[in-house]
Amino acid sequence: MIITFWIWLLLFLTKLSYSSHEPIDKDSAKNCKYLDETHLENFFKAIDYRKDFFIERLAQAVDIPSVSSQSESQGDLLYMLEWAGDILKNLGFSWQIKIPTLSNNSKYRSSLKYPFLFGHLPIAQKIREQTLNKSKTLLIYGHVDVVAAKYSDGWEQSDPFVLERKNGFLKGRGTTDDKGPVVAWLNALSVLKEELGNDCFPPLNIKIFLETGEEIGSPGLRKILSNEATFFNDIDYLVVTDNSWLTNHKPCLTYGLRGMVYFSLEIKGPFNQDLHSGIYGGPVDEPLQESVYLLASLVDKDGKILIPEIYDDVLPLEEPENASYSSIQFNDKNPGAYYVASKNEVLAKKWRWPSLSIHGVEGSVSQKGDVKTVIPHRILSKFSIRLVPDQDPERVKALVRTYLEELHANWTMGKEDTNTMTLESLHEGIQAWYNPNPQNNPVFIIAEKAVKRVYGLKPDYTREGGTIPAVVYLSQAVPSPTNVILLPIGTADDGAHSQNEKISEQHFMNGTKLMLAYIYELSLTQY
Amino acid sequence: MIITFWIWLLLFLTKLSYSSHEPIDKDSAKNCKYLDETHLENFFKAIDYRKDFFIERLAQAVDIPSVSSQSESQGDLLYMLEWAGDILKNLGFSWQIKIPTLSNNSKYRSSLKYPFLFGHLPIAQKIREQTLNKSKTLLIYGHVDVVAAKYSDGWEQSDPFVLERKNGFLKGRGTTDDKGPVVAWLNALSVLKEELGNDCFPPLNIKIFLETGEEIGSPGLRKILSNEATFFNDIDYLVVTDNSWLTNHKPCLTYGLRGMVYFSLEIKGPFNQDLHSGIYGGPVDEPLQESVYLLASLVDKDGKILIPEIYDDVLPLEEPENASYSSIQFNDKNPGAYYVASKNEVLAKKWRWPSLSIHGVEGSVSQKGDVKTVIPHRILSKFSIRLVPDQDPERVKALVRTYLEELHANWTMGKEDTNTMTLESLHEGIQAWYNPNPQNNPVFIIAEKAVKRVYGLKPDYTREGGTIPAVVYLSQAVPSPTNVILLPIGTADDGAHSQNEKISEQHFMNGTKLMLAYIYELSLTQY
Repeated sequence: MIITFWIWLLLFLTKLSYSSHEPIDKDSAKNCKYLDETHLENFFKAIDYRKDFFIERLAQAVDIPSVSSQSESQGDLLYMLEWAGDILKNLGFSWQIKIPTLSNNSKYRSSLKYPFLFGHLPIAQKIREQTLNKSKTLLIYGHVDVVAAKYSDGWEQSDPFVLERKNGFLKGRGTTDDKGPVVAWLNALSVLKEELGNDCFPPLNIKIFLETGEEIGSPGLRKILSNEATFFNDIDYLVVTDNSWLTNHKPCLTYGLRGMVYFSLEIKGPFNQDLHSGIYGGPVDEPLQESVYLLASLVDKDGKILIPEIYDDVLPLEEPENASYSSIQFNDKNPGAYYVASKNEVLAKKWRWPSLSIHGVEGSVSQKGDVKTVIPHRILSKFSIRLVPDQDPERVKALVRTYLEELHANWTMGKEDTNTMTLESLHEGIQAWYNPNPQNNPVFIIAEKAVKRVYGLKPDYTREGGTIPAVVYLSQAVPSPTNVILLPIGTADDGAHSQNEKISEQHFMNGTKLMLAYIYELSLTQY
Repeated sequence: MIITFWIWLLLFLTKLSYSSHEPIDKDSAKNCKYLDETHLENFFKAIDYRKDFFIERLAQAVDIPSVSSQSESQGDLLYMLEWAGDILKNLGFSWQIKIPTLSNNSKYRSSLKYPFLFGHLPIAQKIREQTLNKSKTLLIYGHVDVVAAKYSDGWEQSDPFVLERKNGFLKGRGTTDDKGPVVAWLNALSVLKEELGNDCFPPLNIKIFLETGEEIGSPGLRKILSNEATFFNDIDYLVVTDNSWLTNHKPCLTYGLRGMVYFSLEIKGPFNQDLHSGIYGGPVDEPLQESVYLLASLVDKDGKILIPEIYDDVLPLEEPENASYSSIQFNDKNPGAYYVASKNEVLAKKWRWPSLSIHGVEGSVSQKGDVKTVIPHRILSKFSIRLVPDQDPERVKALVRTYLEELHANWTMGKEDTNTMTLESLHEGIQAWYNPNPQNNPVFIIAEKAVKRVYGLKPDYTREGGTIPAVVYLSQAVPSPTNVILLPIGTADDGAHSQNEKISEQHFMNGTKLMLAYIYELSLTQY
């Protein structure tokens, strides 16, 4: 408690000291003539000035272990939203938390809740008057849940839920995915309000939508989008910051995401406990043998998925997209290695072709050093397939089921007592998303301007191999699915979902500036 | 301490009460004319009379968590031997513990010790005088280490190291493998001494040899056998009770064991931490994908091992062995299921053909319920092959290595940065053991008599699918490798190495009688 007091005292003093930096032109602000470009530099300085305070804000967010896959984190999911709501309230937002009722046949235990935050702040009166009824509405999406993390996974810091600030990096679970970006949005809004004053903030209508179940497949999201359709039906721009740059050195704008289907594959032997492999090895059907047979039948050494018909609906890679890959600066050897040599092929494999990853094999002798000679009696394997346009998740699920059922029938054919197989989808299937022709899309053109203001660079136009269900469903909920952009601020080596997740201080601060610049550029479109 | 005191008081009173049962003919005993067959029934009654005391002895042994695979059990390994040594001392044995020095290149950390107990009690003077220098020497082998066990593995009892006596069963780790049999030997000897008196006990030379590293491949065994060769060079009969009956209903004598080679197969990706499967899935080499490819290439759905040349040295199954399978009573559906229909084929697959079992896959997402979307960066798989005559473990190891290296080269061929593979043998390879023509072997004929005395049945002659390195090496250390027999007392469903390991009270007691009867029958051969 005493330490907490001193931290708060420090923050309070930091806050007091804001007034000592050079203010922007008071008259311009008063009259909301801030939209003169010279002001952007002042805003950036104001962001730099608040660095320690902003990092402390991130530390508070990381400190809340809002792990959506753990039922014991239920309270922390809600607490995270309330924590964000407090900051939004100070910014003038009205906000509320809504919790959809999950159906009984949901994969998520119906007693668990994944709340959503809806925040709204209308454009400042003075600015609206100048926009001649052309005022626009921006929707910011983020998620404040994280994947599990513990020291024993291989973290350098003893507690992944205590932010470590070291050598210019901010380390901890959620720093890049996605608490860091959410906090950066809140920070950008804080500076804008501070600098513009109440009369001129915000310079356009701003809505914010925060989720707490993104990492487990967004339970309840589709329902809440349907229940709250009016919240979304006046959105002009939807911006999502939940992915990373393709590299460590160059910003990018992201126009595509892969989708996903996730399976658990249980193979159970015709016996109820592990067997001694000396006594029983030979005449009994071994679940782990069948499991590796099935898993090895899913994908070949070159990453080609072996499930029949799975490539039938995949859109071909055509110009100008194919050509655009050549101009992308991508020579990263992060995480260390790709097995394909050509850049274009690496990018196509990450973005444009489906991939199948095997994540885990549960139920076998998996303790380090254990040399038990047993035949495990039940094996649960997990694998997922990343989908691309125009693959339909339901069709892919059916293809996987048909294929594995055939292989299982082949394994058990002609045998007496044999293994049984149970295949389940652990996630709702998520389709891929993409914004065609981004280089001519106004949403991207505005974002490109913002990137140039912060980094002095034209961003790369990239896709992304990951999956964000919210992007798919939100792009269907807003009036135009093409007014959607992914604006990443973290870098390729940030380690989302991995041990030692981090964001650099530099990218956290520049990201805040990018978000402010983006709001600034959007607000210019209203005149 | 108080509880311990009461237990000891109880045992003391139990011991005092021995004198109250009907004694055998005092004169016969005094003159060592006990070898009249009618005495055997008296000995059996004396065993029954001591039931609670004998079970309490087993409880004491189970209570010592002598898990050879855990370094924290080092003290308990030694303690188990000292505990057995105390009982042997009371029986008149001289005994000592010897600890071989393990070489630095041993797989076992050289600081760990796996001690052996050597016990010896010469034939009673009065009996030796009657044998006309034909007195024989019996060597009893057992091991007092166990495999790991914990409640969370799925045990019904909260502590697998506290014997649970329930519904006629004795449950706990080691009850059947191999503390139960070792205690049964000690119990049989106790009754013989009690009933015969000091002058006539033992009726032949008895040596005992106890091991503490059997479950981890018998480290130091070969060295100690070489160091202590004189201890073994006068052995006439070697009896080992470290396997189980083929069924639950019929005793058997075992004349064969399979051997074993045990491998760990590490596949490491060209990156140092788990990767996000969305961001990296496609262009990176996935260690778990290669692992399942390699593992699935080891064995087919019918248990046929796919490693080239591995069957070259396997002896064919010929008559009369093949015919002998038909007379074996084996219709057990324990553990529930075999995938082959014919009895002879089940037996051949258990005993006569090599089998390959995959035990574990370490390093993947293996926590229950975890749905992480990662590409694990390092997978360690474990598998073993049970060997049969005349397969040479070193040749099999070489075949496995050649095959996996070829498959790995195939997987990585033409790729830029790829996985690396490391194959290791975790055990010293153990060859198979068998005693040809057991039905005409005097050692088996004597044991068959003992079985008939206890169970009133002719035993089945069986092989065993498991591996006991001590049998292989001891049969080479004693003068004649054909004077070796396996004399099991537990049943097929006892669950050695598994959850809820047990032995029934009935089989524990009958086993004690069998051991006594076996010593009795052996001693008759001296005249």
